[in-house]
Amino acid sequence: MNSRMGIWVVVGLIAAGGLTAAIALAVVRRTSDAENVDYDRDFCHPLLIAHRGASGYVPEHTLGAYALAATMGADYLEPDVVMTKDGHIIARHDNKLDITTNVAQHPEFADRYKTQMVDGSTLSGWFTEDFTLAEIKTLRAIERIPTTRPGNARMDGAFDVPTMQEIIDLAKGLEVSLHRPIGIYPEIKHPTHFQRLGLAMEKPLVDLLHKNGYRGPEAPIYIQSFEVSNLKELKNMTDIRLIQLLGGNPNNPPVDQFILGTGLTYGQMATAEGLKDIAEYAYSVGPDKGYIIPRTSEGKLGEPTSFVKDAHAVNLKVHPYTFRSENSFLPVEFRSEDPSPAALGDAAGELKAFFDAGIDGAFTDHPDDFVSARGPCRK
Amino acid sequence: MNSRMGIWVVVGLIAAGGLTAAIALAVVRRTSDAENVDYDRDFCHPLLIAHRGASGYVPEHTLGAYALAATMGADYLEPDVVMTKDGHIIARHDNKLDITTNVAQHPEFADRYKTQMVDGSTLSGWFTEDFTLAEIKTLRAIERIPTTRPGNARMDGAFDVPTMQEIIDLAKGLEVSLHRPIGIYPEIKHPTHFQRLGLAMEKPLVDLLHKNGYRGPEAPIYIQSFEVSNLKELKNMTDIRLIQLLGGNPNNPPVDQFILGTGLTYGQMATAEGLKDIAEYAYSVGPDKGYIIPRTSEGKLGEPTSFVKDAHAVNLKVHPYTFRSENSFLPVEFRSEDPSPAALGDAAGELKAFFDAGIDGAFTDHPDDFVSARGPCRK
Repeated sequence: MNSRMGIWVVVGLIAAGGLTAAIALAVVRRTSDAENVDYDRDFCHPLLIAHRGASGYVPEHTLGAYALAATMGADYLEPDVVMTKDGHIIARHDNKLDITTNVAQHPEFADRYKTQMVDGSTLSGWFTEDFTLAEIKTLRAIERIPTTRPGNARMDGAFDVPTMQEIIDLAKGLEVSLHRPIGIYPEIKHPTHFQRLGLAMEKPLVDLLHKNGYRGPEAPIYIQSFEVSNLKELKNMTDIRLIQLLGGNPNNPPVDQFILGTGLTYGQMATAEGLKDIAEYAYSVGPDKGYIIPRTSEGKLGEPTSFVKDAHAVNLKVHPYTFRSENSFLPVEFRSEDPSPAALGDAAGELKAFFDAGIDGAFTDHPDDFVSARGPCRK
Repeated sequence: MNSRMGIWVVVGLIAAGGLTAAIALAVVRRTSDAENVDYDRDFCHPLLIAHRGASGYVPEHTLGAYALAATMGADYLEPDVVMTKDGHIIARHDNKLDITTNVAQHPEFADRYKTQMVDGSTLSGWFTEDFTLAEIKTLRAIERIPTTRPGNARMDGAFDVPTMQEIIDLAKGLEVSLHRPIGIYPEIKHPTHFQRLGLAMEKPLVDLLHKNGYRGPEAPIYIQSFEVSNLKELKNMTDIRLIQLLGGNPNNPPVDQFILGTGLTYGQMATAEGLKDIAEYAYSVGPDKGYIIPRTSEGKLGEPTSFVKDAHAVNLKVHPYTFRSENSFLPVEFRSEDPSPAALGDAAGELKAFFDAGIDGAFTDHPDDFVSARGPCRK
């Protein structure tokens, strides 16, 4: 009985000889024990999840950002994924292409500009669902927040938009290079939106991951979503680990729950009772970091809540988002005095407070600062 | 007959039947034709040699800089290599460690500070030959020119000093990831200096490369040197391709030639006659770019010289150095108006002039600008 495989209670009754064989197998998964298993024990702890790659240093969601993250010590590379018109899974933060590509400079695509509702917001721009992969491959990635990250904007135009398969290939090659596992941590973006377009991502993503050998909870992969229904569907499609993300505003509902009219909010999901429900289908929970240590009215770190304890009580791993090293993102006590929008503060100070709060991993744009805060790799 | 293998003239006489078989094979390598062979035909052309990695964007000579370069489209990753006290080959531009590491912030190494002569210059600092690899692995890389590259200095401390073996492992993994060959282009730094210390790098480097499967002129590897004698010795140690570098000041001699008192200068080596001598032992020549297109007194690009024609006449490939995209390094006509020392100009403008001059490849700190100037990959 392998503890990594969960603990099963097997009751068997076998009647042999000339008699009719009657075999009754009652297989009862003892959830609470099984989910104490740490499937990431080949990685460093807490787990370093490189948010959109090393997106503090290179334009996000590019092979360059992912490769840099791995060389900085990332355990997992985190792509957000969206769909193309022809059903290819690509890495972009949004289906709205003009935020992070030069699509607006392509006159041949001018007529694809449109205004539509996405997840309850009215947006104008160019959208991945209106472009084939071949068309998207003619675009170049640009920095999303160039004022804060002028060093990244130097690389505007250097990279194309990668497919999920290219990211898998990158991770597998880098495992050879760096002699350690490199996991991947995809987030399905705008799931309801793509389902309504007939471009649901859940099955194609699972098929792609299975095809690449990622199967079962031991595979170095997680699938994330801010919605609920698709995670529950995924639970029936695959044994790959799932993570329920929790939006930063506790009054907001997941998009699918809003449409279903259940009244469920992220705030309710973040309670001890809500986490127990999540533990039925997810291995891990990915809260906005404010659920763990809220900020005071002065913008400093306040007192830790019971979130980590409550999540651990139902055997959920806790991977909060997003740790960024520029002053504007840091609690005020960790900011440096440099007034430049690009100036970096004491990111390790903030991270250490969260490590002390018992988190199991975290999403960061600056993998090097995470490594510095964590210290030598512990497994 | 494979053109990659050179052209051989085979004369055979075979007497068959019951008679004694007499077989005479005269194998004559037709040197001039053979050396027209392009051993880089699996790569794009002109060849993109990522100088110290993508050192325009990430601190030079780090795994991060090399990985980023590959994802930007580099054909070859270029490390400078020096020796540790205990005979390990590591990547640094200089044996003087304080230029690109935080060694000065390590009090335990304060007593290693010293003043010595290196290649005719008196230098004060910390030197690789006084540190074991284990000691050097406790240091962190820092940006060499932070005023020009503040975006790189954000990553001070993110990386350690890589060994040559780690760079080989990185390249081999990235070949798997990117589905194309990734070559390596090491330069032996301060060869005479290390020979005098009993730490000659030539044989250990060749042994390491052979051990990793790099053998013969088809292997995706070059060995560079600014000196002459060591390249001639290397010619007898290995069939790996060699490249003779030519220092920017034509009045200067290679260090070994100065010591030998031959009177040979880089300017003489760059003449048609000098190049003919180089072709006896090297596959390629790596001149300062000024030998190919000198600058006018106003700092603009002048008229191309006969250098490329002269080198090609003796079947030497031409790989000039170093193309950098910041204004301060560019010919004045390609500079942008932004007065910041970090501002980038029209690097592609300069590169295209050199492509037109017939170069076979070039060393650049900004691989993305090279790809942009070159256009789609041609093989």
